[in-house]
Amino acid sequence: MNRSKWIGFAATLLGPGLLCAAAQPSAPTADPSRVQQHLTELARFGTNPEGGVSRVAFSDADVSGRAYVRSLMEAAGLELRIDAAGNLIGRREGSDRKLPAIVVGSHTDSVPHGGNYDGDVGVMAGIEVAQQLRDRHVRLRHALEIVDFTDEEGGLVGSRAMAGELSAATLDLVNASGRSVRDGIRALGGDPGAVAGVRRNPGDIAAYLELHIEQGGILERTHTDIGVVQGIVGIHWWEATVTGTANHAGTTPMDQRHDALLAASELVLAVNAAAREIPGRQVATVGQIRAEPGAPNVIPGRVTLSVEVRDLDAARIAAVFERIRARAGEIARASGTSIDFRDLEATAVPALTDPRIQHIIDSAAHALGLTAMAMPSGAGHDAQDMARIARIGMIFVPSVGGISHSPREYTAPADITHGVNVLMSSVLAIDAGALDQLKPGRPLPSHKHQAPPHGAGGIL
Amino acid sequence: MNRSKWIGFAATLLGPGLLCAAAQPSAPTADPSRVQQHLTELARFGTNPEGGVSRVAFSDADVSGRAYVRSLMEAAGLELRIDAAGNLIGRREGSDRKLPAIVVGSHTDSVPHGGNYDGDVGVMAGIEVAQQLRDRHVRLRHALEIVDFTDEEGGLVGSRAMAGELSAATLDLVNASGRSVRDGIRALGGDPGAVAGVRRNPGDIAAYLELHIEQGGILERTHTDIGVVQGIVGIHWWEATVTGTANHAGTTPMDQRHDALLAASELVLAVNAAAREIPGRQVATVGQIRAEPGAPNVIPGRVTLSVEVRDLDAARIAAVFERIRARAGEIARASGTSIDFRDLEATAVPALTDPRIQHIIDSAAHALGLTAMAMPSGAGHDAQDMARIARIGMIFVPSVGGISHSPREYTAPADITHGVNVLMSSVLAIDAGALDQLKPGRPLPSHKHQAPPHGAGGIL
Repeated sequence: MNRSKWIGFAATLLGPGLLCAAAQPSAPTADPSRVQQHLTELARFGTNPEGGVSRVAFSDADVSGRAYVRSLMEAAGLELRIDAAGNLIGRREGSDRKLPAIVVGSHTDSVPHGGNYDGDVGVMAGIEVAQQLRDRHVRLRHALEIVDFTDEEGGLVGSRAMAGELSAATLDLVNASGRSVRDGIRALGGDPGAVAGVRRNPGDIAAYLELHIEQGGILERTHTDIGVVQGIVGIHWWEATVTGTANHAGTTPMDQRHDALLAASELVLAVNAAAREIPGRQVATVGQIRAEPGAPNVIPGRVTLSVEVRDLDAARIAAVFERIRARAGEIARASGTSIDFRDLEATAVPALTDPRIQHIIDSAAHALGLTAMAMPSGAGHDAQDMARIARIGMIFVPSVGGISHSPREYTAPADITHGVNVLMSSVLAIDAGALDQLKPGRPLPSHKHQAPPHGAGGIL
Repeated sequence: MNRSKWIGFAATLLGPGLLCAAAQPSAPTADPSRVQQHLTELARFGTNPEGGVSRVAFSDADVSGRAYVRSLMEAAGLELRIDAAGNLIGRREGSDRKLPAIVVGSHTDSVPHGGNYDGDVGVMAGIEVAQQLRDRHVRLRHALEIVDFTDEEGGLVGSRAMAGELSAATLDLVNASGRSVRDGIRALGGDPGAVAGVRRNPGDIAAYLELHIEQGGILERTHTDIGVVQGIVGIHWWEATVTGTANHAGTTPMDQRHDALLAASELVLAVNAAAREIPGRQVATVGQIRAEPGAPNVIPGRVTLSVEVRDLDAARIAAVFERIRARAGEIARASGTSIDFRDLEATAVPALTDPRIQHIIDSAAHALGLTAMAMPSGAGHDAQDMARIARIGMIFVPSVGGISHSPREYTAPADITHGVNVLMSSVLAIDAGALDQLKPGRPLPSHKHQAPPHGAGGIL
């Protein structure tokens, strides 16, 4: 199919009030077996006996895994470069050099003992889009860049650099590979002294798209093919310290205790209740707890615990925390302990996706006969950094059992294929000018997850 | 004072229905400055910059501390030996070789970062009693043995051996000194291969007495001089494991969680409630908790926590645990988790003191013009092992703020002097035949803590 036919297809997506629910015979679709083969081959780097991979950023497995990704980008005809932050970028020039690039990215590093889908699917999908364009000799108006970002799992290092937000302190952090970020970037072919130059300016990027596994169980449970991400939730961390009085567990009567763990337990329940008592999708979690001195025969005198609250709306995060803090005050008074909260720096503000890109993704899904629903991303992604400098969109595909960061992470091949096809259609629609033709509009409503009746679809 | 005068004094204590509330002019009393000097000198071994000591059993500080104790025993005219378990024993022969020994014991090892009173006071008191007997040329009918037991804090090693209950597995344990119990016993001059021979048989010991700091705040709060210990509580330990599902804290909605820490927090509250909901002095504590995987952004999938219940009555311990287990079942059902309890071997059955010795101690206190109250020992002591083979009695002196196992542990010199004097009187009374003259009788009632009106005292 030549470029004009592609533009014709994209125009169908954008036709006045109309959307072709069935893919045209000539519509570009992924080669499912090739995508699967690439995922399987990538899984060899850092493979673990129990399944999945440990491909921690900057490890030997990461370095050799990225060499494999480079070979795929080369095969897809992409022009390669590694920026100073170590990001691996494959570029296909567009016909109009004045237009900014459409960027598709994700990452191929993993957590220790991670799976084969988180990040990998997005990078392989981007490469498949580029490979299809090459195979079909299609040239877009915009340049297309496929990015395999540096060290996503360790703190979105590559995308943070691209957004101009990578701090010097981060360069000194040492991750599970045993390397500092600084040395790791060097190992990936970057230049840690020049990361400031990696920064893209607003206007440099037409749109940033990322396909990712959901990492939750909502799509699977509701039998929905595609998640149209409304935004990446903000994450706020606090460290709570409950101070009571450590004392002998045998000689201190029950009514003479100031048991820090007893108060902390009430706080754990309060954190949970604070998120549940108000409507919405906010979540609040205590994942870490330490009681001191920590012996079975000593009443704990000090307990530290983590408090995390996430939501798409920063004001709602603040409201949930206020409920927690108020309840903590009551618990402290009643138990004769003190409870203090330390606001941790490791916080991320909510990053909303562009409502027009939400509509483009939703329409693309329906045009392909897929069901889609709008949903927040509870997990962090490179897209959240890219939101600082570009309009972003994210496509989710189902995670079986909602499991991620585990060897048991799994997304069915058919679901991956659906995701790649939606990504491809979205790239084409944006290249064809859909962003300019759509009004800024409102975001997709939540909980929309039914496909429109056959043939009745339209731009929402 | 010669022996006949001493017997005369003891007879005063035992006179038909009468007790001399004021100490006789010639009554033996401790030399307060000597006892304090010995405590101060002992505190040099393993001293910490923040105060207190780390004189962990088998450490160099313990070895040299015991050499100091040996020198005091020698000065008090005691015949020294170290048994195969490393127990340091100073013996003063009695006039009647057919009578079993009266044994006074405690320990001089400490917890890491411990204080200067727990254990030390009891050993120094025993030595002061022996020193007084020597200084005043008094010979008792019974032999008197002063024992500095091996490794009390690490599991009552020395007294357990004397009771014939030291297991081979215990010999392999490595404590905070870095030495195994086996090697440690060797370092103290014992012979770990021969510990079985250390066992004393019922009948070998006329009575076992131990003076100890209370380690609780009851005596101080009620302005009582002496605690007459009713028994050493039984201690039962369980390890509870709460199994839920570890999952992503961002992508798992609140109503889809099986949060092991949330269920564990309810269990902590239930353990506390189980001890409080029924009348009595039982205590229940969760001192240790671990959440896995233990990251702020992961819902805990597994939590392990310690459960400890103590009481003088084993049936009551079982009843408290049954309440805990029943509530755990409800928590598990409601939260979609499972909660299992593992019964740990490190349990001690309650060890009651001899009611007649309780009366002897109580009478001795009143004869000295002191206030006394009956109370359980919430902490474990060497006496609890000795209870397996002998009639035991324990004397408590106040702990300021109820603090122990801490550099802030403190007992005022006057309170220590009171305790030594009560110990001395009790030894004399037992030597004079008080145990035979008293009817087995009932234990002291709880909460008795008023001195009888002046001069109106009597055997209770």
